[in-house]
Amino acid sequence: MVNYARIATTGQPKVVIIGGGFGGLELVKSLKNAPVQVILIDKQNYHTFQPLMYQVATAGVEPDTIIHPFRKIFEDQKNFFFRLAEVQRVDTQQQLVETSIGLIRYDYLVIATGATTNYFGDEQMEQNAIAMKSIEDAISLRNTILANFEKALQVDEEEHLNSLMDYVIVGGGATGVELAGALSELRKHVFPKDYPELDFKSMDIHLIQSGGELLKGMSPEASQKSLQFLQEMGVDVLLNRRVKSYDGYTVTLDTGETLITRTLIWAAGVTGNPVAGLSPESFIKGNRLKVDVYNRVEGYENVFALGDIAAMVTAENPQGHPMLAQPAIQQGALLGQNLVNLHEGKPLQPFIYKDQGTMATIGRNKAVADLRLFKKEFKSQGFLAWLIWMFIHLISIAGFRNRLLVMTNWFWNYFTYDSGNRLILGEKQENAPLAETITHKTVI
Amino acid sequence: MVNYARIATTGQPKVVIIGGGFGGLELVKSLKNAPVQVILIDKQNYHTFQPLMYQVATAGVEPDTIIHPFRKIFEDQKNFFFRLAEVQRVDTQQQLVETSIGLIRYDYLVIATGATTNYFGDEQMEQNAIAMKSIEDAISLRNTILANFEKALQVDEEEHLNSLMDYVIVGGGATGVELAGALSELRKHVFPKDYPELDFKSMDIHLIQSGGELLKGMSPEASQKSLQFLQEMGVDVLLNRRVKSYDGYTVTLDTGETLITRTLIWAAGVTGNPVAGLSPESFIKGNRLKVDVYNRVEGYENVFALGDIAAMVTAENPQGHPMLAQPAIQQGALLGQNLVNLHEGKPLQPFIYKDQGTMATIGRNKAVADLRLFKKEFKSQGFLAWLIWMFIHLISIAGFRNRLLVMTNWFWNYFTYDSGNRLILGEKQENAPLAETITHKTVI
Repeated sequence: MVNYARIATTGQPKVVIIGGGFGGLELVKSLKNAPVQVILIDKQNYHTFQPLMYQVATAGVEPDTIIHPFRKIFEDQKNFFFRLAEVQRVDTQQQLVETSIGLIRYDYLVIATGATTNYFGDEQMEQNAIAMKSIEDAISLRNTILANFEKALQVDEEEHLNSLMDYVIVGGGATGVELAGALSELRKHVFPKDYPELDFKSMDIHLIQSGGELLKGMSPEASQKSLQFLQEMGVDVLLNRRVKSYDGYTVTLDTGETLITRTLIWAAGVTGNPVAGLSPESFIKGNRLKVDVYNRVEGYENVFALGDIAAMVTAENPQGHPMLAQPAIQQGALLGQNLVNLHEGKPLQPFIYKDQGTMATIGRNKAVADLRLFKKEFKSQGFLAWLIWMFIHLISIAGFRNRLLVMTNWFWNYFTYDSGNRLILGEKQENAPLAETITHKTVI
Repeated sequence: MVNYARIATTGQPKVVIIGGGFGGLELVKSLKNAPVQVILIDKQNYHTFQPLMYQVATAGVEPDTIIHPFRKIFEDQKNFFFRLAEVQRVDTQQQLVETSIGLIRYDYLVIATGATTNYFGDEQMEQNAIAMKSIEDAISLRNTILANFEKALQVDEEEHLNSLMDYVIVGGGATGVELAGALSELRKHVFPKDYPELDFKSMDIHLIQSGGELLKGMSPEASQKSLQFLQEMGVDVLLNRRVKSYDGYTVTLDTGETLITRTLIWAAGVTGNPVAGLSPESFIKGNRLKVDVYNRVEGYENVFALGDIAAMVTAENPQGHPMLAQPAIQQGALLGQNLVNLHEGKPLQPFIYKDQGTMATIGRNKAVADLRLFKKEFKSQGFLAWLIWMFIHLISIAGFRNRLLVMTNWFWNYFTYDSGNRLILGEKQENAPLAETITHKTVI
């Protein structure tokens, strides 16, 4: 029995978009007045503003302030249809998307499924580490950190205590740097007030980076300054090291060094998050779909991909564009125009990436920014970069209500040296029971 | 092996409080400068402002705005120690509380474990209904409501559609009335914008009350006006009915009437939530602990109980005080003084309840209030009562940050006719699969 999902037919061509990240969201917007039916499929009913997930993980802002329901964002867009569903596979012969709520027919298919955490095949790591790719991950990390301190109160054996209070962050990109900085601020200003019974001098934050510099891809000034900021804030930055293994307790590095922690945060790599049913020839290294300058997937007429999942391989970009919000947003905006052009038989516009720069925040009054404004490069590190970072992130968050709440939280945090509500609410990572881990020592 | 929880001994007598609801919280506060060590045990790391849980359930405010971490609330109280733990039982012979983190010794024990949902032994109801006693319940209800509408989009069979869009609330007390009103506001102002594909004229809200009036215990004016408000807002109030059974789909009333819904909210009764290990003779009907006018549990010298779990049976209060926030708060404040008096061999003060009145809000500009101010009765229904309701609830929420956020949300909701973020985030109740339920009709 063929089971179609129920979606009213408007008589217009159906543009089906899988995934409501930055790229998918911008594409929906750019099709607002287009003579098409826009169908967005996502397994969540909300868009996540990923750049602030690290603040959720460190209890700086609440989850609801950085996520925004699709139905709310597009409540005034008449040609918009949302379906909460999991995509199982696509059938490009029949032009169907197979989902948990039934089949959805398309005329144009856009794959905007983004990226997922890359554990490079290390199943033990995947099982024991905490990732930072979804709001659930961020909430789980927040709950785990707070629960660790509650547990630490019951421990006096030193190694075991360290395992609960120390953190290892793997990956010196923006996520790793921002998490390390935020944890360090909490260690200084917040945790000692919450847990006067614990000694936070013994809380170590290790940041492990495989290369010789942090924030690879940014300017040397940004890399150096972020390293300096983190070291001044007491973060133990370990450059030129790789993690060989992690069993949930002992981290072993390729240098033979070991670290003890029950909480390893894996921010060391991402890989494309493809849907099943596409030709294996369409993929390049890293599970990304090879697209032409119109974001059309190689080998297909009416299948497109954008954002992290898409690799637009050109002479200037042999690896495709960086897996960041900006390329996704710009591709989404152009693809909206091009889909209309395609349908009307007009010529398509090739995509040209306008790199507006990148930024990372390290702590209070401390950020690094490499910007390109009016075709001029502008580099800044410190307080000004931090102000710019806040301004740009605030105006980028979807929804005025969310902007207001994030701003309220930030002002609050800044002037009180406090941070948001430190709640253990929802899922958390369950550590292995103590007795199983330290068998060679007495367990309290 | 005897396993004690690690808590530094201050040398002062240990007051151990089980449960950080309104009563426990107030008791901790009132012991701020007392020469005792205050140990609060709770299975959550936060206090919940229960009167606004219905707004979480209906996406009016976010969970984090009405819950507040104990460690934050008492960060300046030197004699305060918090332990996140589940209590298994108490051993009044040895003066020990047995918990998930080990044994905790007490000199004075205070049981403030509150109340839990009373299903009156109906296991089928317990399995199929949604309760409203914890923040997790409220989040689950919010997620279930939103997920129901997403599912309803896939249905055209009428009975099945109604089962997803209709709501049955059992219990015409404050929780039931406030939920019914809030759902009705959403049906009018919010849901039709979010789900333009659904017809909300077919969404029914049934409120079932066993007695002949709503808000039993309030004035006749309040009861009548709340009924009138709800009826004007299109809520189907069914008085003098009891629910006989609910199988997750069909609600059968004692009159023989049936209603169809996949979401029945059970707000029809509470019962004491006792800890194990106390003498059965100490309990009265409804699982409440019989206490004297000093909140001392009958049969014990140094075991106390307050709030919903305590029944202070007197000539004026043959059933004990009403299970509301006010008696718990007032008992907590006095018990703090009395514990110090007891320890210092001074006479104890008997508890006298000052009833300040009760309130319930029904909708936008609509509330009912029976207040007692300066020994005068003051009754109000409508806009003024609604303003008073907002004011009193705002000043009662723990934490300035939370007050600010709730107020921001309320202003936002009021002026935009919108409400908070309608997110499906966290647990939800999984309905039975469609095919199992409606076997006599075609399933789409």
